[in-house]
Amino acid sequence: MDYNQLYNNILRKGSFLCTGLDSDPALFPAFIREKELPIFEFNRAIIDATIEYSVAYKPNLAFYEAEGAIGWEQLKMTVEYIRKKDSSVFIIADAKRGDIGNTAKKYASAFFDKLDFDAVTLAPYMGRDSIDPFLKQRGKWAIVLALTSNPSADDFETLNVGETPLYRRVIESVMDWGSQDNTMFVVGATRPEKLAQIREFCPNHFLLVPGVGTQGGTVAEVAKYGMNSSCGLLVNVSRAISFAWMDDETGKYSGGVNFDKAAGEAAALIVKEMRCFLAS
Amino acid sequence: MDYNQLYNNILRKGSFLCTGLDSDPALFPAFIREKELPIFEFNRAIIDATIEYSVAYKPNLAFYEAEGAIGWEQLKMTVEYIRKKDSSVFIIADAKRGDIGNTAKKYASAFFDKLDFDAVTLAPYMGRDSIDPFLKQRGKWAIVLALTSNPSADDFETLNVGETPLYRRVIESVMDWGSQDNTMFVVGATRPEKLAQIREFCPNHFLLVPGVGTQGGTVAEVAKYGMNSSCGLLVNVSRAISFAWMDDETGKYSGGVNFDKAAGEAAALIVKEMRCFLAS
Repeated sequence: MDYNQLYNNILRKGSFLCTGLDSDPALFPAFIREKELPIFEFNRAIIDATIEYSVAYKPNLAFYEAEGAIGWEQLKMTVEYIRKKDSSVFIIADAKRGDIGNTAKKYASAFFDKLDFDAVTLAPYMGRDSIDPFLKQRGKWAIVLALTSNPSADDFETLNVGETPLYRRVIESVMDWGSQDNTMFVVGATRPEKLAQIREFCPNHFLLVPGVGTQGGTVAEVAKYGMNSSCGLLVNVSRAISFAWMDDETGKYSGGVNFDKAAGEAAALIVKEMRCFLAS
Repeated sequence: MDYNQLYNNILRKGSFLCTGLDSDPALFPAFIREKELPIFEFNRAIIDATIEYSVAYKPNLAFYEAEGAIGWEQLKMTVEYIRKKDSSVFIIADAKRGDIGNTAKKYASAFFDKLDFDAVTLAPYMGRDSIDPFLKQRGKWAIVLALTSNPSADDFETLNVGETPLYRRVIESVMDWGSQDNTMFVVGATRPEKLAQIREFCPNHFLLVPGVGTQGGTVAEVAKYGMNSSCGLLVNVSRAISFAWMDDETGKYSGGVNFDKAAGEAAALIVKEMRCFLAS
């Protein structure tokens, strides 16, 4: 998928929502935990309920790896299921990998060839060697960590390197290595004022924005400061969709009955707000 | 395992060799590629041939993930096999992970609980949140990327943050977050002069040093500049051991016959050199 195809999908669905699949079995409703393939069963129900609202999905690999080989198998089944439901969906491996040339090539092969992901999240610390191998396949993307949404992002990401913070140096370097058709950046929703600053030197690239929902960011602020003329945003929401039933205070979903319905309602509400900004 | 136990193992074996298991099936001898579990069969033969010389092993996860669920299964079998052969060996998951709190916890669970690794390599970009969860289990280690051996390490790692390079800032921060019993640093063998500089502000911690062999670093230079009074070094050699038969020019190992014997001889030669430095 290239930049324009992604933008067209956003327009067609009226959504720039990426549904995160941080599918932690410890949090599943009991009747899902009992299944033979609980992660896949959980994901399938969430996907069915959210596919009309989601322009992208982002499985977080830690939750699959923590289950060993059977977790990896369910990751594969999840990607295949999404593809079958809607082949236009952009699927991101939230892997945050970063390694030297021959190792990076192997990771690219794992995610792009064996698993049919469209994109992989990458850590930039080791430099260009660790990004380049992900830019070799047409239509596949590297999504590079820039300014993340966690509290300790200030330990290194915002340190000044000369006159500019490290995250800006990362973004400007990666912009040179790839194009807006194969690179985007992770910028947390928890610092909307930074989104505006980033748009000054990175006006066109897509940004993958986590931190809306549980972490406190809002769609309105992200859209106000981060949107460009091609939308340029994928806003990721994980827990506030997949585990919406846990935060519901009406008692309607107690015990996780219809957890998928709760997820669908949460996604619908987010997308309703997104449509206001896409239309304006 | 703690700092002193690791040092005692080094003394007992007379070795600070970490054998890297970058087990790429594309490079296996044909008769291994035909097996049902080629990665495990390859690793088992390499482990049998090198266990008397290796104080540590380091599977590089990319090569296992690239095979999907069956690769993950063979990773598990490999760790179990090493434990069975010699329970004192230090086993490192070369994963270079780095993610926020709840995700990092899941990765720690995957590597320490499900797979029984002693240590995981981590990327520091996201800061303390991404390191802390790996420091919660007594005897388990976080090995943090500092100054890597790849050419593009200079893209970000050596940039000056104020008066000091980023990699020094990383090392000094992580030294505050953990102790010499649960943290070490990756410093490439390709820049021995930097090892001496790092020993000025980080005298005691263990360093995991890749880049000896194929990448051009030498045991002698690493020992000269990086060794401390508790050795303080794990020197990783991957390809120059596992695929030693490919570089052999005598014809003795052509086609990979006795590839494991070639690996054992390569490891023995490295350790012979290491013993000179341990004894001095």
